[in-house]
Amino acid sequence: MTRELGVAVIGYSFMGKAHSNAWRNVGAFHPHLPRVAQQVLVGRDASAVSAAAHQFGWRESATDWRDVVTRDDVDVIDICTPGHLHHEIALAALRAGKHVIVEKPLTNTLEESAELVVAAEEARARGVRSMVGFNYRCVPALALARSVIAEGRIGEVRQVRASYLQDWLVDPDAPMTWRLRKEEAGSGVLGDLGSHVVDQVRFLLDDEIASVSGRLETFVESRPGPSGPEPVTVDDAAWALLGTSRGAVVSLEVSRMAAGRKNALQIEVFGSRGSVAFDLERLNELWIDTGEGRTRVLVTEPDHPHLEPWWPPGHVLGWDHTFTTQAAGFLAAIAAGTDPTPSFEDGLAVQRVLDAIERSAVAGRDTVALARS
Amino acid sequence: MTRELGVAVIGYSFMGKAHSNAWRNVGAFHPHLPRVAQQVLVGRDASAVSAAAHQFGWRESATDWRDVVTRDDVDVIDICTPGHLHHEIALAALRAGKHVIVEKPLTNTLEESAELVVAAEEARARGVRSMVGFNYRCVPALALARSVIAEGRIGEVRQVRASYLQDWLVDPDAPMTWRLRKEEAGSGVLGDLGSHVVDQVRFLLDDEIASVSGRLETFVESRPGPSGPEPVTVDDAAWALLGTSRGAVVSLEVSRMAAGRKNALQIEVFGSRGSVAFDLERLNELWIDTGEGRTRVLVTEPDHPHLEPWWPPGHVLGWDHTFTTQAAGFLAAIAAGTDPTPSFEDGLAVQRVLDAIERSAVAGRDTVALARS
Amino acid sequence: MTRELGVAVIGYSFMGKAHSNAWRNVGAFHPHLPRVAQQVLVGRDASAVSAAAHQFGWRESATDWRDVVTRDDVDVIDICTPGHLHHEIALAALRAGKHVIVEKPLTNTLEESAELVVAAEEARARGVRSMVGFNYRCVPALALARSVIAEGRIGEVRQVRASYLQDWLVDPDAPMTWRLRKEEAGSGVLGDLGSHVVDQVRFLLDDEIASVSGRLETFVESRPGPSGPEPVTVDDAAWALLGTSRGAVVSLEVSRMAAGRKNALQIEVFGSRGSVAFDLERLNELWIDTGEGRTRVLVTEPDHPHLEPWWPPGHVLGWDHTFTTQAAGFLAAIAAGTDPTPSFEDGLAVQRVLDAIERSAVAGRDTVALARS
Amino acid sequence: MTRELGVAVIGYSFMGKAHSNAWRNVGAFHPHLPRVAQQVLVGRDASAVSAAAHQFGWRESATDWRDVVTRDDVDVIDICTPGHLHHEIALAALRAGKHVIVEKPLTNTLEESAELVVAAEEARARGVRSMVGFNYRCVPALALARSVIAEGRIGEVRQVRASYLQDWLVDPDAPMTWRLRKEEAGSGVLGDLGSHVVDQVRFLLDDEIASVSGRLETFVESRPGPSGPEPVTVDDAAWALLGTSRGAVVSLEVSRMAAGRKNALQIEVFGSRGSVAFDLERLNELWIDTGEGRTRVLVTEPDHPHLEPWWPPGHVLGWDHTFTTQAAGFLAAIAAGTDPTPSFEDGLAVQRVLDAIERSAVAGRDTVALARS
Repeated sequence: MTRELGVAVIGYSFMGKAHSNAWRNVGAFHPHLPRVAQQVLVGRDASAVSAAAHQFGWRESATDWRDVVTRDDVDVIDICTPGHLHHEIALAALRAGKHVIVEKPLTNTLEESAELVVAAEEARARGVRSMVGFNYRCVPALALARSVIAEGRIGEVRQVRASYLQDWLVDPDAPMTWRLRKEEAGSGVLGDLGSHVVDQVRFLLDDEIASVSGRLETFVESRPGPSGPEPVTVDDAAWALLGTSRGAVVSLEVSRMAAGRKNALQIEVFGSRGSVAFDLERLNELWIDTGEGRTRVLVTEPDHPHLEPWWPPGHVLGWDHTFTTQAAGFLAAIAAGTDPTPSFEDGLAVQRVLDAIERSAVAGRDTVALARS
Repeated sequence: MTRELGVAVIGYSFMGKAHSNAWRNVGAFHPHLPRVAQQVLVGRDASAVSAAAHQFGWRESATDWRDVVTRDDVDVIDICTPGHLHHEIALAALRAGKHVIVEKPLTNTLEESAELVVAAEEARARGVRSMVGFNYRCVPALALARSVIAEGRIGEVRQVRASYLQDWLVDPDAPMTWRLRKEEAGSGVLGDLGSHVVDQVRFLLDDEIASVSGRLETFVESRPGPSGPEPVTVDDAAWALLGTSRGAVVSLEVSRMAAGRKNALQIEVFGSRGSVAFDLERLNELWIDTGEGRTRVLVTEPDHPHLEPWWPPGHVLGWDHTFTTQAAGFLAAIAAGTDPTPSFEDGLAVQRVLDAIERSAVAGRDTVALARS
Repeated sequence: MTRELGVAVIGYSFMGKAHSNAWRNVGAFHPHLPRVAQQVLVGRDASAVSAAAHQFGWRESATDWRDVVTRDDVDVIDICTPGHLHHEIALAALRAGKHVIVEKPLTNTLEESAELVVAAEEARARGVRSMVGFNYRCVPALALARSVIAEGRIGEVRQVRASYLQDWLVDPDAPMTWRLRKEEAGSGVLGDLGSHVVDQVRFLLDDEIASVSGRLETFVESRPGPSGPEPVTVDDAAWALLGTSRGAVVSLEVSRMAAGRKNALQIEVFGSRGSVAFDLERLNELWIDTGEGRTRVLVTEPDHPHLEPWWPPGHVLGWDHTFTTQAAGFLAAIAAGTDPTPSFEDGLAVQRVLDAIERSAVAGRDTVALARS
Repeated sequence: MTRELGVAVIGYSFMGKAHSNAWRNVGAFHPHLPRVAQQVLVGRDASAVSAAAHQFGWRESATDWRDVVTRDDVDVIDICTPGHLHHEIALAALRAGKHVIVEKPLTNTLEESAELVVAAEEARARGVRSMVGFNYRCVPALALARSVIAEGRIGEVRQVRASYLQDWLVDPDAPMTWRLRKEEAGSGVLGDLGSHVVDQVRFLLDDEIASVSGRLETFVESRPGPSGPEPVTVDDAAWALLGTSRGAVVSLEVSRMAAGRKNALQIEVFGSRGSVAFDLERLNELWIDTGEGRTRVLVTEPDHPHLEPWWPPGHVLGWDHTFTTQAAGFLAAIAAGTDPTPSFEDGLAVQRVLDAIERSAVAGRDTVALARS
């Protein structure tokens, strides 16, 4: 009999809570996968992390991830910290022979991501698994969309409209936060939401981004800080056109200023014989058009992707179920001795696209000014 | 410091899985409520229930509920068995001083329900809490609808259109099951889905049903059994008109033959100044019309009912989250020493309405035949 | 070469305007049908009808329909008066050998309708055509629905949900009108909107209504008149269950009090293999579900019913186009020497169903009162 | 008493049919405007134009527009020819003192459009009116959107998502047509559909486009002609980012290859306090979000723009009604001695934006190529 896999999560705020939820529940829905022990939750504030560990079902808490990544009773390191810490923790964990999940983005810089890819490759040779956490790959409707495209039901993909719109910064008096300072956040909405979009496009089309042009915009250039206005140094909205290796053109638009859109990752893929469309605010639905009209598929059937472990048809899932499915996929790969996806290489590929968008946006040479008539 | 509340769930199939999920997660989202210990899962098949207990996070399993309802380490009995067992188990549990949740329907007969109401009232005097599990009261959008109505935003309610449509019996060759035999199932779709509709109408309108007329229909009168066709002795579809104490008229329609509807509990409430509308297949949304048009509210904001413990705006919930919220409500009532809702009285009130619908349907005296022209 | 067909419309308010629009335009979209001359518009107020005739494109106006129904330059009489005049005018016109269209309802009483059916049958033998104006049969999406059902794509029809909801009486202070007095209007919403629903059900299913039970309700029992409150003597809302000859069950609900619904004729037809759904507020769309999900068909293709004469795909039609299509159907029947549909028999059949609903509602014997618990 | 205004339409195919429909009906819905005489329909094929004139309600037909533009019984010249003829006919008509409507695009070249603007300005001094036919300004829902924005209900506009998607070229074997040859058509989808989008953005925002970047794509580079494959020399799809004078950013996407989209002009306008959204496939609806959620307004009320002349609430309009409203606006301006909108200046402004998009697309200097990883 196999012993349980010990898991440690580093970080206990939004993502730490979502990943803890996944580890607490994965066994109940995937009884044939290795059992998980919620071994330790890690954070800097001893008292707060102890309370969080108790709340989220962890056996212990700890304040120094360095101690944790080498513990014998820990097999999996799940990194939910801010992005600037991903590189150091992941490197240490891989070197210690631990399987590693890194919440997206893989890192804040191309260089760090490239190093992690090398480290993951070395670790892979030793049977150590690694994955980057683009959880929307686990939305059943998006996984179904990928299948529909892969089966050729919509023909050859030509045109993709992809956007991710939120509105939490729409009010110009919303206060300054670290997320709006480039030195801390790395980037604005492009890195935060654009990364999800780019990953989904690669996932859905099973294709690579070959060329890029883009534009960034900061609509509200300063916001109230504790001691007066502070400059916003990241983008509020971003746009790009992506060309894929197989010749499709993808328009991308992301924003934190789209009044009324709460979490609207919307993707439409147009092929030579049909189209599919998705909206994260209605994540149990996929629209497929291959002839007579647009078909709304309620993606809750047992033969739809990822759904067999859950509930009967028509009993919809929520946002957090994607993390449970993601954890199951990671455990399945560990058990099978295969490499889980999305890999660190996938994470790096996304970073490269975002980096190219930023470089194109800085150039801005294609813009034509119009004289006032 | 309070000790944990020990919970036992009786039953481990569909509802047992859903309730187990709730008990496993309630603490992670409601840290200020009493902690729960998943003490024991009960079922008749020792091997199967042992496996289920392991899978769903229970400390132990047991095969005789009689032993469990008197255990000192069990404070809450959660009954997820078929309906004909509810009465006996609930009575025993209440007498043993355990808090009791009974999955709907309260029981299969009016008499049994009436007895449970008496027992619950006696137990209440001893501080013992009881609740019937109409989990859809915990859908945030429906709770918001109730608030909208209670605040008078749609005026005086006059007309309600309520339906619950599924299609799992649409194929006439779908095989016979115990759910289609009156002696085992008690009733067909009226009891199964109609009970949810009646409870919701009472919940949303905060009003009582005062009069009823109804009709039942069995479209497919026999189905293939292991040794040939067997008669279907329950209803496939049912209709009713309900008059409320305050003068509203409610049309109710439920079916297991509505091709293409998977889990469509749809309710529209029309008042003298506006209306609200809901569809369970899009359970994160409520439509409110109080003037300019129909407003689709994405019910995921922290100030919407039941949502504060969960995720940021726009991060939608699924069907199973309603059970976690229901469990939290039960724990909160226990902690506060108050009576949770819906009560056994609510369960009995629903049964009375269903019973009256059946009696009206049998009578069928209002039907006017039309001669062929 | 055939001479033009002279048309006279009797009545020039809402329906007179809509029918005038049809006669003015039918030739532009149906060049192969007989040409129409807009000969004369008839109304009681000489000055007002003269202005209306000028506005709507008529050559002349007249104040006495008796003079008009015998004119040699008039071949078609189109009756758009209030219902209590239909019988007399139609009889006179048929006897004069004129083709007759009667706007729905055929008449206000069963007796009058039965007489018109006899008169139409006699006229038919002389080559005189007659039709009742249920214009929604000319909505392309509903005509497509009929085809889908007739082709067996949704299997055997079992269950229909049909409603027609408006809200123009939702305000209890909306003033009294003749439409709310039984002696003038004949009936309330049941006759006005219920007639459309019953006709559509017969049209879509190609089936007869065999049995009926119903209920009527007047929510606002008096309304302000010029000299104080006046009693409302017709129904504000109505409900019925209809059984068809082939065993389907239809639930019908109509209301003028459904806050937020402007013109919502909604029909869902559930069969043994699929379903269709329609909403008049989105009249260019039909939803068809025969397997993978619900398909929204934008009914604007040239091979969809009634659409070839109009515009390219995606260029939607409005409410008034249905009358032009209806006029074209009538002209085509005249030209071909065939009988147009819906016939006076169809009009009578609808009246019979409405009458039976009223009788059932008066009986009210199936209603079961519930004691207050 | 004023005599009727004589109208001539040049062209009798798709647009000629739509404009004829407008002239035939405008008087019936706008009785207080000058009456119109459908004087003459002009086309090159004598027999065909004669038949069309008869069908569409014209008194006469003619084959040479030069004769028509100077006729005394003609006051209005309505130009529905292909774009390369607009310039010559419009110039002649203005010089002859006729009021002129030019169907969009104003002309095929910037130079021609600039000359027409000058000619219109000179004519204006003589009381001669001119207008370019962007009929979508007459969609009630879009006119309402403009009001909502102008009233400040959504705050300061920041971000606009605008697309116009069709699919009539999705099949790579669809045959070659003159519309796909640059020398005849001028441009592809950018000119055809992009012009509507740019005009709408200017109309809705009441703002000018100040800068532009863009990209064009031809997905299917050759198509079957009568004697073998022929090259497609115009764009199948186009994208642009537009910056407005007041600082908004507009993303534009147009395509004839968007499988399943028939006539989908979709516009979302995001402001600092709310948003509006529109889809031409549901042209009677506007979505407004200024707080609690997204409100679907059924734009059929008498106090909504352009709707008073038509039907009661809930009785929807179609695509062709926009041309009738457009004709009414032109007649009202003639009667009032004011300048109608959109003016030739508006037409030129749109052309300038399209021209700048093409120039930016040719440059393509911002595109960053990504090495294969």
